[in-house]
Amino acid sequence: MQVCVVITARPSYSRVKTVLDAIRSHSALELQLVVSGSALEERYGAVVSQIEKDGYPIVRKLYTLVEGDSPLMMAKTTGLSLVELASTFEQLSPKLVLTVADRYETMATAIAASYMNIPLAHLQGGETTGSIDNRVRDSITKLADLHLVSSQAACAKVRSLNEPASATIVTGCPSIDIARKAQTHGPLSSQFIRRHVRRGEFSSLPEKYLVVMQHSDTTRHHETKLEILQTIGAIQSMNRPTFWFTPNVDAGSQALFKEMEKFVYANVKHDLWCIDNLPPGEFLRLIDHCECLIGNSSVGIRESAFLGVPVVNIGTRQTGRLRGSNVIDVEPDTTKILRAIRKQVRKGRYHSDDLYGDGYSGIRVAEAIFSFLENVLHDNSRGSNTGQSTQVLE
Amino acid sequence: MQVCVVITARPSYSRVKTVLDAIRSHSALELQLVVSGSALEERYGAVVSQIEKDGYPIVRKLYTLVEGDSPLMMAKTTGLSLVELASTFEQLSPKLVLTVADRYETMATAIAASYMNIPLAHLQGGETTGSIDNRVRDSITKLADLHLVSSQAACAKVRSLNEPASATIVTGCPSIDIARKAQTHGPLSSQFIRRHVRRGEFSSLPEKYLVVMQHSDTTRHHETKLEILQTIGAIQSMNRPTFWFTPNVDAGSQALFKEMEKFVYANVKHDLWCIDNLPPGEFLRLIDHCECLIGNSSVGIRESAFLGVPVVNIGTRQTGRLRGSNVIDVEPDTTKILRAIRKQVRKGRYHSDDLYGDGYSGIRVAEAIFSFLENVLHDNSRGSNTGQSTQVLE
Amino acid sequence: MQVCVVITARPSYSRVKTVLDAIRSHSALELQLVVSGSALEERYGAVVSQIEKDGYPIVRKLYTLVEGDSPLMMAKTTGLSLVELASTFEQLSPKLVLTVADRYETMATAIAASYMNIPLAHLQGGETTGSIDNRVRDSITKLADLHLVSSQAACAKVRSLNEPASATIVTGCPSIDIARKAQTHGPLSSQFIRRHVRRGEFSSLPEKYLVVMQHSDTTRHHETKLEILQTIGAIQSMNRPTFWFTPNVDAGSQALFKEMEKFVYANVKHDLWCIDNLPPGEFLRLIDHCECLIGNSSVGIRESAFLGVPVVNIGTRQTGRLRGSNVIDVEPDTTKILRAIRKQVRKGRYHSDDLYGDGYSGIRVAEAIFSFLENVLHDNSRGSNTGQSTQVLE
Amino acid sequence: MQVCVVITARPSYSRVKTVLDAIRSHSALELQLVVSGSALEERYGAVVSQIEKDGYPIVRKLYTLVEGDSPLMMAKTTGLSLVELASTFEQLSPKLVLTVADRYETMATAIAASYMNIPLAHLQGGETTGSIDNRVRDSITKLADLHLVSSQAACAKVRSLNEPASATIVTGCPSIDIARKAQTHGPLSSQFIRRHVRRGEFSSLPEKYLVVMQHSDTTRHHETKLEILQTIGAIQSMNRPTFWFTPNVDAGSQALFKEMEKFVYANVKHDLWCIDNLPPGEFLRLIDHCECLIGNSSVGIRESAFLGVPVVNIGTRQTGRLRGSNVIDVEPDTTKILRAIRKQVRKGRYHSDDLYGDGYSGIRVAEAIFSFLENVLHDNSRGSNTGQSTQVLE
Repeated sequence: MQVCVVITARPSYSRVKTVLDAIRSHSALELQLVVSGSALEERYGAVVSQIEKDGYPIVRKLYTLVEGDSPLMMAKTTGLSLVELASTFEQLSPKLVLTVADRYETMATAIAASYMNIPLAHLQGGETTGSIDNRVRDSITKLADLHLVSSQAACAKVRSLNEPASATIVTGCPSIDIARKAQTHGPLSSQFIRRHVRRGEFSSLPEKYLVVMQHSDTTRHHETKLEILQTIGAIQSMNRPTFWFTPNVDAGSQALFKEMEKFVYANVKHDLWCIDNLPPGEFLRLIDHCECLIGNSSVGIRESAFLGVPVVNIGTRQTGRLRGSNVIDVEPDTTKILRAIRKQVRKGRYHSDDLYGDGYSGIRVAEAIFSFLENVLHDNSRGSNTGQSTQVLE
Repeated sequence: MQVCVVITARPSYSRVKTVLDAIRSHSALELQLVVSGSALEERYGAVVSQIEKDGYPIVRKLYTLVEGDSPLMMAKTTGLSLVELASTFEQLSPKLVLTVADRYETMATAIAASYMNIPLAHLQGGETTGSIDNRVRDSITKLADLHLVSSQAACAKVRSLNEPASATIVTGCPSIDIARKAQTHGPLSSQFIRRHVRRGEFSSLPEKYLVVMQHSDTTRHHETKLEILQTIGAIQSMNRPTFWFTPNVDAGSQALFKEMEKFVYANVKHDLWCIDNLPPGEFLRLIDHCECLIGNSSVGIRESAFLGVPVVNIGTRQTGRLRGSNVIDVEPDTTKILRAIRKQVRKGRYHSDDLYGDGYSGIRVAEAIFSFLENVLHDNSRGSNTGQSTQVLE
Repeated sequence: MQVCVVITARPSYSRVKTVLDAIRSHSALELQLVVSGSALEERYGAVVSQIEKDGYPIVRKLYTLVEGDSPLMMAKTTGLSLVELASTFEQLSPKLVLTVADRYETMATAIAASYMNIPLAHLQGGETTGSIDNRVRDSITKLADLHLVSSQAACAKVRSLNEPASATIVTGCPSIDIARKAQTHGPLSSQFIRRHVRRGEFSSLPEKYLVVMQHSDTTRHHETKLEILQTIGAIQSMNRPTFWFTPNVDAGSQALFKEMEKFVYANVKHDLWCIDNLPPGEFLRLIDHCECLIGNSSVGIRESAFLGVPVVNIGTRQTGRLRGSNVIDVEPDTTKILRAIRKQVRKGRYHSDDLYGDGYSGIRVAEAIFSFLENVLHDNSRGSNTGQSTQVLE
Repeated sequence: MQVCVVITARPSYSRVKTVLDAIRSHSALELQLVVSGSALEERYGAVVSQIEKDGYPIVRKLYTLVEGDSPLMMAKTTGLSLVELASTFEQLSPKLVLTVADRYETMATAIAASYMNIPLAHLQGGETTGSIDNRVRDSITKLADLHLVSSQAACAKVRSLNEPASATIVTGCPSIDIARKAQTHGPLSSQFIRRHVRRGEFSSLPEKYLVVMQHSDTTRHHETKLEILQTIGAIQSMNRPTFWFTPNVDAGSQALFKEMEKFVYANVKHDLWCIDNLPPGEFLRLIDHCECLIGNSSVGIRESAFLGVPVVNIGTRQTGRLRGSNVIDVEPDTTKILRAIRKQVRKGRYHSDDLYGDGYSGIRVAEAIFSFLENVLHDNSRGSNTGQSTQVLE
């Protein structure tokens, strides 16, 4: 039974990687991997190269990113993706489509599958964040047939949208699987990091360092520039070795990118390194050994809970998302960010918290898909509403 | 304050017509009318000509219907619509977008507005039918900012999807406004009907006649042909004057169209007339004076409840939709359909039921939009989540 | 070496059918067959079913027809085709793309191949007709790398557009190959025809009959309705058994279709039959035994020259196209059409004329493609302009 | 009479600027300005901001750039542009569309106008360069109704493609108009330049400086990186004040961009400045006072001929283009480039050559359009082929 997985952006890959493994290992499932959107673009750390290096066979690459840095681009990219995904699903005829999370392009996958009567499984429904992603995520939930959620809280949220219990499975988040494996390895080799540092000279991995991952908040993308400047102020004052990751493509990301670049170039002497992308496992090894993760990435909320990494979460992008005790939330204000980083650095590592999974989610997801498909095959019940009429002729 | 209304199909027009009037009459609102998809195609009774004849100024016509008669076409048309609507909203900069009901193209309107941070009002959320429309409708509800619903039941349904009470207004369905006005006029003139009959010779309006409106059920579109043949069998046995309306464009509609045409041509002598489309008001005058409405159109459920017209509703397309006592539900089976029609013809007219509205909904919708926009202007609160963090630095 | 052939409309199939055979038989070539546009639509005699029945493996079906009956639709369909063909060529990586003739969608194939640096072979360049096709055809010629033309006149025309002699090969038109084979069979069986007649009752093939094939003239599509009415007048006066073929999808074709249908339905008793489509071979057998072919199809000009069938060619659609003595050209005027038909019926069959080919073109085309690809492999010279500079540094 | 001008890229603006002025000044013409593609993207020096600052009213902005750095992107962007331009022309109903030059997106303008029966005027047909642009340009010539060419050579070339003399007007290139005006001003102020330098510290305009403009050669885009490294080597050896312009968006431009950036950052101390874009007039004032212009931009061939600026033209991108004595052509080889720059610096300025125009082309273009439209109105002759039939019924 063919399962089509669509990866549209960098973060989706790490959230689905162990699922890909589990589908490929499953005797009854067959993987059809489609990569599209920003996951194909070099400028945003072409995750596609990583996927290929990791040995996953890609059946279709769909170049659908309409250039621009604005909400308009999000809508158009989704439209173009929809056109091409529809053709792709027609050609591949999968038994089920798996879509990941809540990025805007994900909606194209959900609609294409839904309209074409292909069962849709949704990974990471039921979560809450402080942005348009909330709407998109819940909207996808209402199109999906099978919900594979990260936590009990997410399960309750999906259920509260009237989705049936039988179709809502708590699998945990597969990204935690990678975190679990990453922990079994030590810190990254300096040599490896050197190859991935895009700007700044890197000699060897310092014992203590910070990591910054700050994306544009799509509902507030006009403030993106102001907000990133607050973070830059704090990092400048900390004055320690720092790895800074390139932001995702999103409304507002261009402004963010520019400020980040300016800062990095103004600090060539400083131990400040810019990285576009790391393979998921290596990425988490870098996070696992940092003193503090700063920004608004979901990695601070999810994988860091499991890893026990101290996190300073800035602004509203992760608002509403369930978090462990390892996170300090602050407003985008240099003084407040600085104070929080110092507190976390003093405090050191936290205990591991399996809020988002215990590290064995990939296999649970593949099993849930398999069971679902077996049931569909047996009763083929979708759409066969029995329909209680108010007045029926005897 | 510009309000952009997007009409994508024939039924949407009658559901929004009195809203257009109310927006135009409102001193603080300005109408931007966009027509797209099958509403522009002659083959499906180009509702656009009617809109123009009725004097509504159209600011954009978006030709987005990708040909085909399959789920693939639904997905592609939505994708192309999304691309063009995004550009259109960018050009028109409306303060709010109003989308109607639950057809597949409606999703394009919802996503474009949502991604571009334009408040989205949704007419007819919270209803229930037996098809993919359910998923689409609920999915749109989760993208919408303002819900303008037909009934208390629809209100409860929208609320159960976690939408706030303050954003869910029971306005009734504006299509009932037209039914109310239609009732004040007598039956249609024979002359008028003659101009709209596409096939079959028509001399004068008989006192007693049937009306058939049967669309493809998109979740069961492979059975469309079998189902329409059951209806044809019953109509043939009834052997009375009958008006038959062309089906909507949808997965399965081609097969339906073909069978209908075959039947109509085989019965040229019989008093059987084929009509593509009537203006909403005239259409309801024809319905109001029929002996029985047969098929699976929502008109049988909604307007007919208000008009008190006897209805035989076939199959699952309207399953789950709230209905009045005027409806007999039957399976797609010639014998059962025939029995039900006979029963209804014997029974005659029902009492009026304002289940779906009292005939003054258009004005309520315009007022609700106005209040919403005033509030938005005052507190501009969208997306400004306050975000309760679990650990905040003092 | 993979050769990708793109078929976008009904007439293209018969013009390329024996080329498909020759490519498949060629030991060094591999066929990649793509079908798109109106060739996929049932409403226009889905040639795709015929292609599948004939056993050609289709690697991609691209649904790209944007509905409408207007020049706008031609432009949009070309745009959507271009998007999907670009993705398709990226996936298939053909060594050469073969495009046929001059229909508007053909431009999408030419641009996609050209921009993606895939050599483009063009069948039927250098011809002349009285419509926008002229512009499109010559424009494609300027994008093509290899010109496979029907006649010496076409060769001269391509050369006059500055294309090199070495890249312009007179292969004859492969549609003549089918005509040659069709002639070796007798008339069609009545049984076969009966299965393909869409409207009108058909018992047995009369000894004498007319065939009508009239398409919309895209540069004059506003006159389409007036013109078809002239033809209908003449056919009505002739009052003999007549086969009438459904028109191609084009600007103006809806109006044409409507008038044709009205006429056919008004003449159910008359021996007037409507046919959507026949397989190329069977189609030419029907033509081969008719008394006169009436309309503006290129079949009247091309295949009929070889077959020696009397033709009445109406209007300007074929203007400028090389023709044999079997053609009488008339203006779209009932009296003139009628007079010409009568003259042709009196005259009877003409001698065969190999103006457009001798019936062995398919193999010549495959050979020309093979030679071209061998040369490309050997010197890979495309784009390597040597560039004579006016002032070069020694 | 509305004339729609479509600008798709940075270079097109300067080639059409004085035409915009002339159309606006013309009493019988009305300007409809559409901006699309890379002309809208900030990353490539958003020429749109310049257009707005210059006060030209833009009626539509079409965001159509599909991201990527490959031939695939060129094809897809053209497809998406075609879809949106078709809708735009439908909405604007211009009497004539003017398209500029030979960039790949230009094809979308040409096809949309052509298919929609809107007369197409083409600026800069009949030229020759060493890239795919040749094919695109000639292909557009075959779609165009009116050819407004730069030189007698270009006129001859267009005529040799069988275009009628009456439709081929030598207007000269409007970019020369700007060069003429630029010469009447002195060198740019340091203050102005400082605001436009993107990277590198700039204090004051040196008396002597070089300018580099090197774009990707689309037919050889895999060599782009190697070629730009050769130029970088030469510039490094020259070691003088240098302005370096960002390349156009094209297949291969990403690689080029990267190398250029690396070089610029490695030379922060050096007097090396990176500029994304200058307004056309200011740009030519900078060129007019440089010692030597290096690269493969058409500015070196066209405007520089008029200005008498010494040019070193690298590689095959401008091959075949008519040039004055001010140009030295070299292969992409550091030693050869270096020798040529030194020779030109020693030589100094050349005499002005009006090979590409005398500085009064804008007005000629507007007049030619006006005359064409008057003729069309008078005889409405387009598409009315008279058609000499070989056998006509008397």
